[in-house]
Amino acid sequence: MKGELSTEPYKGVRDFYPEDWAALSSAFETLRRVLKSYGYEEYNASPLEPASLYESKTSEEIVNEQTYTFTDRGDRKVTLRPEMTPTLARMVAAKRRELAFPVRWFSIPNVFRYERPQRGRLREHYQLNVDLLGMKDAKADGEIIVIASKLLRAFGAQDKDFSIRISSRSLLDAACNAAGFRSSEEKDSYRRLLDRKAKMPKEEFEAALEGRPDPLSLIESADDAEIAKEKDALLSLIEAFNARSMTNVVFDPEIVRGFDYYTGLVFEVFDTNPENSRSLFGGGRYDNLVGMFGGDAIPAIGFGMGDVTLMDFLTTHGIAPVAKSAATIYIGTPSEEDIAPAQTLADTLRDGGVSVIVHVGGKSLGDQIREADKRGNTYFIAYGKDEQSSGEVRLKELESGEETTLPISGVAAHLAK
Amino acid sequence: MKGELSTEPYKGVRDFYPEDWAALSSAFETLRRVLKSYGYEEYNASPLEPASLYESKTSEEIVNEQTYTFTDRGDRKVTLRPEMTPTLARMVAAKRRELAFPVRWFSIPNVFRYERPQRGRLREHYQLNVDLLGMKDAKADGEIIVIASKLLRAFGAQDKDFSIRISSRSLLDAACNAAGFRSSEEKDSYRRLLDRKAKMPKEEFEAALEGRPDPLSLIESADDAEIAKEKDALLSLIEAFNARSMTNVVFDPEIVRGFDYYTGLVFEVFDTNPENSRSLFGGGRYDNLVGMFGGDAIPAIGFGMGDVTLMDFLTTHGIAPVAKSAATIYIGTPSEEDIAPAQTLADTLRDGGVSVIVHVGGKSLGDQIREADKRGNTYFIAYGKDEQSSGEVRLKELESGEETTLPISGVAAHLAK
Repeated sequence: MKGELSTEPYKGVRDFYPEDWAALSSAFETLRRVLKSYGYEEYNASPLEPASLYESKTSEEIVNEQTYTFTDRGDRKVTLRPEMTPTLARMVAAKRRELAFPVRWFSIPNVFRYERPQRGRLREHYQLNVDLLGMKDAKADGEIIVIASKLLRAFGAQDKDFSIRISSRSLLDAACNAAGFRSSEEKDSYRRLLDRKAKMPKEEFEAALEGRPDPLSLIESADDAEIAKEKDALLSLIEAFNARSMTNVVFDPEIVRGFDYYTGLVFEVFDTNPENSRSLFGGGRYDNLVGMFGGDAIPAIGFGMGDVTLMDFLTTHGIAPVAKSAATIYIGTPSEEDIAPAQTLADTLRDGGVSVIVHVGGKSLGDQIREADKRGNTYFIAYGKDEQSSGEVRLKELESGEETTLPISGVAAHLAK
Repeated sequence: MKGELSTEPYKGVRDFYPEDWAALSSAFETLRRVLKSYGYEEYNASPLEPASLYESKTSEEIVNEQTYTFTDRGDRKVTLRPEMTPTLARMVAAKRRELAFPVRWFSIPNVFRYERPQRGRLREHYQLNVDLLGMKDAKADGEIIVIASKLLRAFGAQDKDFSIRISSRSLLDAACNAAGFRSSEEKDSYRRLLDRKAKMPKEEFEAALEGRPDPLSLIESADDAEIAKEKDALLSLIEAFNARSMTNVVFDPEIVRGFDYYTGLVFEVFDTNPENSRSLFGGGRYDNLVGMFGGDAIPAIGFGMGDVTLMDFLTTHGIAPVAKSAATIYIGTPSEEDIAPAQTLADTLRDGGVSVIVHVGGKSLGDQIREADKRGNTYFIAYGKDEQSSGEVRLKELESGEETTLPISGVAAHLAK
């Protein structure tokens, strides 16, 4: 035996006490409800993946500097998943002959990145992943963006609370070609430059172009035929949203997204609150990822939404879910002999779908009420000899102090109202 | 870019395709419903824990040979939790001043052990953990055993389908004292011997006693006063269950449980099916674990139930949950122009709580029906010009082929029936 153990969790991860977990679970349930209503099916997998799954797919920076990778006792190189998309692609590829396409799937996995803890950037977080595989056209792009919007709206957010900025990798590729960035290394390097543009001085950005025109300005003018075609496709998509009264989708050629594997549409959702004008989540089209496991390419589009940014957004806008973890009713027992009858009453209420705890510890009734209050139970019922013989109880609402006298058989129905 | 990637998951872990995940999630929801009805609150934590959390607590064999332990990029020793109890004890200890005791908590974490994959023994599995902390008496022991039983009964199991065998570490300790096993090393070594008894020849077991009496036979005769006291406590507990018509709780002094930290009652639930007579899950009292984090000891009792053994039990008894992951309705679109009206219809149905997918891929109606069938959707609706003008649809139940003609406004209500 050693000295006292620390009660701290591992650095950068969270303990979820019941109240916190109830709030997060409630948010997850809202996401599930919306996604299931669109026919999206939930899948899951282990956080342990062969390290090879991430090599040459996820961004280089993430693989080399930010993954948890280790060697197991059988000498296998294992990575704790930093994101879910490679797992999804692996699973779809494994059953490509059996699955009915288009595949509409979602998952809410925990993902891991070794980085310095900072606001919204933990070493482990939950990330909703929504993906549509097997469709290449604008209808799939449209569906995914509609769903991204519906998810926020399901919490009570309005279109004015967030904007969806879209661009595409194929547009950027055309612009890079026109500007003279021809090799994939040059294009990747420009893309990474663009991704950091907001954080660097204008001069530094311009110097990095080494005298070539900025692809962004070529997109602006759209004189090049290929650029014009790609840009028009995005503008048509936006028009289609406008026609459906979704007015918060805008074209923004500076949207890049970090992952190397994106091929087409990319989008990012921003909070429009001027005090918290940040990127909430995003995604894009990745038509070549599933094909890396063999067989024909399977076109795909999807997005990932982290739990911390989602909850921050909901809190900022005053629409965070309120959830309770404590039992609805605390049954107080004035004496030892009241415990057995109270247990019977509790079982009846439980059968009616009510959550109930019974006091079995021998405290005074006053202490029992104080305990119920501290616990956060909604109601208190004292169940002594009088109540047992009359068959009537007083249901005390702890927050208001209000009491309602009811026959025992009417409690569950009263609460259901 | 390298060659083709493998679609295999990491060795010993599972991919959960939507149908599998729906079945497991449904089982988890049943567990949650029962536990919440008893006022148990769900908590959660990261699978990453400081390695020090498991040293000198979990069984030595598990820590030395079966954990996933590695060093992170910041030189911290990290373990993927092999079990949840140390995390629970850490979390309760951290908030011991704020929590209302007794604490009733549960969680359904994934836990990790490095061992050879075999039936019911994966490297990662889900394990329901149910714990009651802050009460030392038989009422807490009784509550935990009642809940263990209620959980199986909630799936439709009957008392005759499983037995709950109980013993206690304090009884075993008294018997070891009486038999002359005095040091804690000698006692631990006898306990481990007993744990392996069923798997070894009788002679080997007897030889290991080195001429001392077998503590088991001293428990049988119960001549020693301390043994008699401990044994009576267990027999009274069983009588109390019998009085509540729970007739499947039996005394079995060979029940040991692997963890070093148990101090009092230990129990194990067995399938009574002669073809599958195996241990399903178990737990026990651990009154010293929380105190290892500093402060007074907090008495505690709990159990863990693995997902694989649970599902095997339910399948063996024909009571495994049936769950569907596919959307309820597939709306077929005879032509491109039908898609927009179909989307509107789908949105209306979704608002009514129905899950719907709309065909947007341009297949023939026959192929659309075949696709819906393959997907496992329950109903198919063809939504063409006729349906749009009449406001009536034919709801085709795919399994039976039965068709019902309904006004559009009546579909959600029809399904709710």
